[in-house]
Amino acid sequence: MAELLRGMKRTHMCGVLGIEDIGKEVVLMGWIQRRRNLGGLIFVDLRDREGLVQIVFDKDVSQEAFDKSESIRGEFVIAVRGEVRKRESMNPDLKTGQIEVFAKELKILSESEIPPIHINDEDDAGERLRLKYRYLDLRKPKMQKILKTRSKIASTIRSFLDENGFLDLETPVLTKPTPEGARDYLVPSRVNPGKFYALPQSPQIFKQLLMVSGFDKYYQIVKCFRDEDLRADRQPEFTQVDIEMSFVDEEDVLAINEGLIKKLFKEIKGIEIETPFMRMTYKEAMERYGSDKPDLRFGYELKNLNEIVRNCGFGVFANTVKDGKDVKAININGGAESFSKKGMKNLEKLAKTYGAKGLAWMKLTNDGIDSPIAKFFSEEDTKAIIDKMQAKEGDLILFVADKTSIVNTTLGALRVEIAKKLDIIDEEEYKILWVTEFPLFEYDEEDDRYYAKHHPFTSPVDDDIEILESDPAKARAKAYDLVINGSEVGGGSIRIHDSSLQQRMFKALGFTEEEAHEKFGFLIDAFKYGTPPHGGIAYGLDRLTMILTGTENIRDVIAFPKTQDARCLLTEAPSIADETQLEELQIKVIKE
Amino acid sequence: MAELLRGMKRTHMCGVLGIEDIGKEVVLMGWIQRRRNLGGLIFVDLRDREGLVQIVFDKDVSQEAFDKSESIRGEFVIAVRGEVRKRESMNPDLKTGQIEVFAKELKILSESEIPPIHINDEDDAGERLRLKYRYLDLRKPKMQKILKTRSKIASTIRSFLDENGFLDLETPVLTKPTPEGARDYLVPSRVNPGKFYALPQSPQIFKQLLMVSGFDKYYQIVKCFRDEDLRADRQPEFTQVDIEMSFVDEEDVLAINEGLIKKLFKEIKGIEIETPFMRMTYKEAMERYGSDKPDLRFGYELKNLNEIVRNCGFGVFANTVKDGKDVKAININGGAESFSKKGMKNLEKLAKTYGAKGLAWMKLTNDGIDSPIAKFFSEEDTKAIIDKMQAKEGDLILFVADKTSIVNTTLGALRVEIAKKLDIIDEEEYKILWVTEFPLFEYDEEDDRYYAKHHPFTSPVDDDIEILESDPAKARAKAYDLVINGSEVGGGSIRIHDSSLQQRMFKALGFTEEEAHEKFGFLIDAFKYGTPPHGGIAYGLDRLTMILTGTENIRDVIAFPKTQDARCLLTEAPSIADETQLEELQIKVIKE
Repeated sequence: MAELLRGMKRTHMCGVLGIEDIGKEVVLMGWIQRRRNLGGLIFVDLRDREGLVQIVFDKDVSQEAFDKSESIRGEFVIAVRGEVRKRESMNPDLKTGQIEVFAKELKILSESEIPPIHINDEDDAGERLRLKYRYLDLRKPKMQKILKTRSKIASTIRSFLDENGFLDLETPVLTKPTPEGARDYLVPSRVNPGKFYALPQSPQIFKQLLMVSGFDKYYQIVKCFRDEDLRADRQPEFTQVDIEMSFVDEEDVLAINEGLIKKLFKEIKGIEIETPFMRMTYKEAMERYGSDKPDLRFGYELKNLNEIVRNCGFGVFANTVKDGKDVKAININGGAESFSKKGMKNLEKLAKTYGAKGLAWMKLTNDGIDSPIAKFFSEEDTKAIIDKMQAKEGDLILFVADKTSIVNTTLGALRVEIAKKLDIIDEEEYKILWVTEFPLFEYDEEDDRYYAKHHPFTSPVDDDIEILESDPAKARAKAYDLVINGSEVGGGSIRIHDSSLQQRMFKALGFTEEEAHEKFGFLIDAFKYGTPPHGGIAYGLDRLTMILTGTENIRDVIAFPKTQDARCLLTEAPSIADETQLEELQIKVIKE
Repeated sequence: MAELLRGMKRTHMCGVLGIEDIGKEVVLMGWIQRRRNLGGLIFVDLRDREGLVQIVFDKDVSQEAFDKSESIRGEFVIAVRGEVRKRESMNPDLKTGQIEVFAKELKILSESEIPPIHINDEDDAGERLRLKYRYLDLRKPKMQKILKTRSKIASTIRSFLDENGFLDLETPVLTKPTPEGARDYLVPSRVNPGKFYALPQSPQIFKQLLMVSGFDKYYQIVKCFRDEDLRADRQPEFTQVDIEMSFVDEEDVLAINEGLIKKLFKEIKGIEIETPFMRMTYKEAMERYGSDKPDLRFGYELKNLNEIVRNCGFGVFANTVKDGKDVKAININGGAESFSKKGMKNLEKLAKTYGAKGLAWMKLTNDGIDSPIAKFFSEEDTKAIIDKMQAKEGDLILFVADKTSIVNTTLGALRVEIAKKLDIIDEEEYKILWVTEFPLFEYDEEDDRYYAKHHPFTSPVDDDIEILESDPAKARAKAYDLVINGSEVGGGSIRIHDSSLQQRMFKALGFTEEEAHEKFGFLIDAFKYGTPPHGGIAYGLDRLTMILTGTENIRDVIAFPKTQDARCLLTEAPSIADETQLEELQIKVIKE
C-alpha cells in the first residue's frame, strides 16, 4: 500500500514556510499530526523536524488528492505537492500560521497503526512506555528540540576548540582496567582467551600520553563507561567532553574554558556571560555553602556560631564546640511561616539522612521568638545569634551541631532542598563559578589510607609540594570544578609532570614502587622521556545539555537511554548470549 | 630536578616563527631535537607540534642560561625566553630557517632518558617497538601530520554536515547483538547477571529508528566494533562516519555525498574534484575490472573472449565456454619483458590463490608471439584475440578460464598486483566512482540460503521489486559504494520503508515470521507507525584518512592501534581480570 517516491523531490521543510512563499508550488513530506473535515474540505497538520504546516485538500483543486486524503490518519507519512496560499484565519501560535498549502497531489508513503503514546508534549505516558516506544517519544517537539540543541552544543564546542588549535584525537574503547577508579565494564577477548578489555571510565591516561607525544592541545567528545549502581542522574554510558593542554598552568586552562562556556551560552541561550568567572576555594565553598558545588542563585549561607554558643546555656551546643566540633546555622529568610509542625519534622528527618543527630530551629514571628531551644539562651546570646544570622521578623533559623563535615553536608543539603521547596530560585538565572584548591587527598577511615581526591596524577599547589609527606591532609591540589547553578558540569586539574614528584605522590598514597608500577606502569615509563607541564578538564555533555535546555531528567537528553537497572527497554539489551559464542570466548555464566 | 612554570607563559609555538618576528622577545617551550656545541656557542633545535626552531645559548647574552644549557640533551623539555634574531646561515629546509632565538632564560621542565626509538621519520624501529613506545613514535613529524590531518578530516566532515542540516546524534555503545552481522564483542552485565550487551558493529538500526523519529538528517562519527580475525587492514575497533537521511532516494544521497567528498579533497588536499562522480554498476565493474572496487588509475581491463575461443583448437578454452563458463584476459601493456620465467610462475601461483586452475599467457615480442598455448590457435584466432585485447608488440596477455566468479576475481586481483609491481600507478591521481546496483542477495552454497548482500533492510531497485520471489538472484539493490583508487571508502543504501515489502524481504531470506521478529522485532514494530523513505551511507574514517594522507598501514592513522592479535602493546590490554569482579559478573573463565 505504501507508495514509492519515484523521483518526487521535497522542496521545503514543513516548519519553515511563510508568507514569502505564497504562490509557490512546493513539495512537502512529513507525518500527519491531525486531520479534520470542515465545510467540505479536509485539513491536515503536517509535521516534520522543523514544525507544522496546514495542508488543505479541496475537491476543486484536486479531486484525486481529496479522495485519497480521506483514508489518511494520524502518523501516516505523506508527500504533498501543492500551492502555498495566504491563510484566511491565521494561527499566531504557529511559525507557518499565515499560510496553508492546497494539495494538488498526494502520495501515502507509509501508513501507521494507532500509536501507543500521543505525539505531543502534553502526552502523560509513563516513562517505561515512553522508553519502550522511544522512536515515537522522540517525535515529540520537546524531545526533538532537546536533541537538536544537544547536537548544536557539540558542534559549538568543537568549532570553538578547533579554532583554538585543539586536535580531535581518538583514544581506544577496548582498553585496560582503570586503577583506583570506579567499577569497569569488562569485555572478554576471544583471540586472547581468559583475558579482558575494560571500557574506559575516561580517556585520562591516554590524553596525558598524547601530551607526552607533543600533540599540545587535545579534545574529544567521547563515550565513557562506569558500572556503578545507577542513581537517578547516572547512566552506564555517558558522554564526556575531554580536553587537555600542554605547557599550561591552572590560569591558562581556566581562561580557555571560560571562553568556551561563554561561547556556549551565547550560541545556545543568547546570553552574554561575564568573564572571568567567580572563583571560590573548596574551603570557602564548604564553609559558606556546605557543598563543593554551591548554588549561588540564593542565599541561606552557613554561619559559624561557635564563638557565640561556646559558653551558652544550651549544653548540646556548648559541648559540641568544646569537643572541637561545629555549631552552624542557616537563615531561611521569610521562612518562619513556611513550615508547619509536620513540615519542621520532615526537615529534621531530612537532616538526619545526612548524619545529623537533630535539627534545632528558631522562628522570628511577630509574637516574638518561637523555638524549642530559646529557653536555654540568655537574651544576649539570642541577640548575638540573630545579629550573626542577620535575621529579622518572619525568618527561620536552622541549627546543626556536629562534626564539621556533617554540619556542612546537612545544612548544605537543607539550603538547596528548602530553596526548591519554597520556589525562590530564578530558573532563568545562571550562576557560574570555579571551585578551586580542592584537597589533594581524601582520607578513608575504613581502609586507613589516603586516596587521591581527583586522581593520582593531580598536581599539588606549588606551595604545598613541601607538605606532601608532613601534612598531606592540608595539601591542596591544582584541581578545579566548573559549577553552574549548583551542578558540577566539569572538573579537571593540572597534572604532575615530574617523575620524582609523581613517585612522592604514589608513596603518599601508600603504594610500594611495585604496586605503582603494576597500576600505572606505562604512564610512569612514558614520563621518563620528557613530559611537558600539562592539564585539562572534562565536562559531562549530558549534564551540560540538561543545564542549557532546562531539563531535569538525564534520560531526556539522551536519544536511547537506559533505565536505572541498566536496561534498554526498546531493544531489550542486555540479553542472553549465544552459548557457542560464550564457548568461543571461553567463559561460562555461573548462576547464583 | 624538573622546574615548574611558576607563571611563565608561552608566547609562540616553535614552528611558526619567521622573519616577521625579528626583534621580538618570545617564550618558547618544547622538546630538544638536537644539541650541538659550535664555536663557543650551544645550538639547540627545539621541537613542538608546529615544527623546529633554532635556539642559541651565548655566554654574552646569558651566562646562566648558557651554563644550564650544557646539561640538556635530546628529548628534554625546556622553556626558553629569548630574542628572535636574523640568522646568518639560513636553512631553507626549515619554515623557521631564517631566524634563531638567543636565549636569555632557560627552564628545564622535564628531563629525558635516552629514548628507545629515534624521534624522526627516518627511524627504522620495528613496528612492535614503535607500538610499545607509541607515545614516542607519535612524536615523529610524519605521525603528527597524519593525526593532525585526521582531526581536520573529521572537522571538515562535521562542518559540511552541520551546514547541510544534519544533526549529530549519539547512539548506544552498550547495545544488543547484531543479527546477521559479524561476530559481536560481548559485555557481561552485573546488574542483570547472565545477560550481555553487545558493542555495535554499526549504528545501523538506531539510525533507522532516528529516521522513524523524524530527525530527518543524522550523522555521527562513531566507534564500531567487530570481533573478526584481523587482517592487515582491520582493527577490532574502527571509526565510522555514519550518515542517514529521510525523504530521499538514491540520487539525493549520492549528491550530498559528492559535495562532502569534494569539500574534503579541497580542504585536505587542495584538489578540485569534478562532480558528479563517475558511476558504474556492480555488473559492469565485475565484468570490466573483476572487482566491485575497481582501481581506474590504470587499464588492464578484463575482456571476454568467449566468442573467439568457443570453437578454437585449445580444448581447455573451448570446453570452458561450452560448459557455460568464461574465458577472459587482460593485456599488460608493455609487460612482455617484465616477467622472467620465474616471474610468470609467481603470477600463476598468485592466480591459483584466487581459485584459478592455471594462468595462460601470450607475450608479443619483437620475435613474434611467445606463448605456451599459441600453437593451439589458428592464425585467425590469434589475430582475433590480439585485436580484441588491443595488444601490440611488447604487451603481455594473461588468460583465465573458469567459472565467471573465479575468472573475475583472479584477473581483478592480478591487474592490481601487476600494476603495483610495475609501478605504473600515479600516486597523485584520484579516481573516484560510485559502484551501484549491487545484487540484493548473495547465495550461500554451504547454508543453501540467500543472505542480504548489504543488510536485510536494503531496498530493491523499484523495477526489481516484482522479481523478489521469482528471481531473487537477479534482483538489484539501491545500494552503492564509494570507491577511490580501488579502495572502498564508504557504502550505503536506500532502506525499505514499507512493512509489507520488508516482510517479503525477510521471507526471501528464509526467515519465518517468528525468526524475523526475534532478530529485528523492535525495528519491525517501529515501522508500523509511519516510516519515511530513507537511506544513508557509512564511511570508514580510518580508510578515508589513509587515502587522504597516502598512508599504507592502517595502524599509522590510529593514535593507539591494536596488533593483528587484538592486543595493545602499550597498555598490555587485554589482561587478566580480577577474580572478585568476575564473581560479581557471575561469569567464569573456562580454560581449554
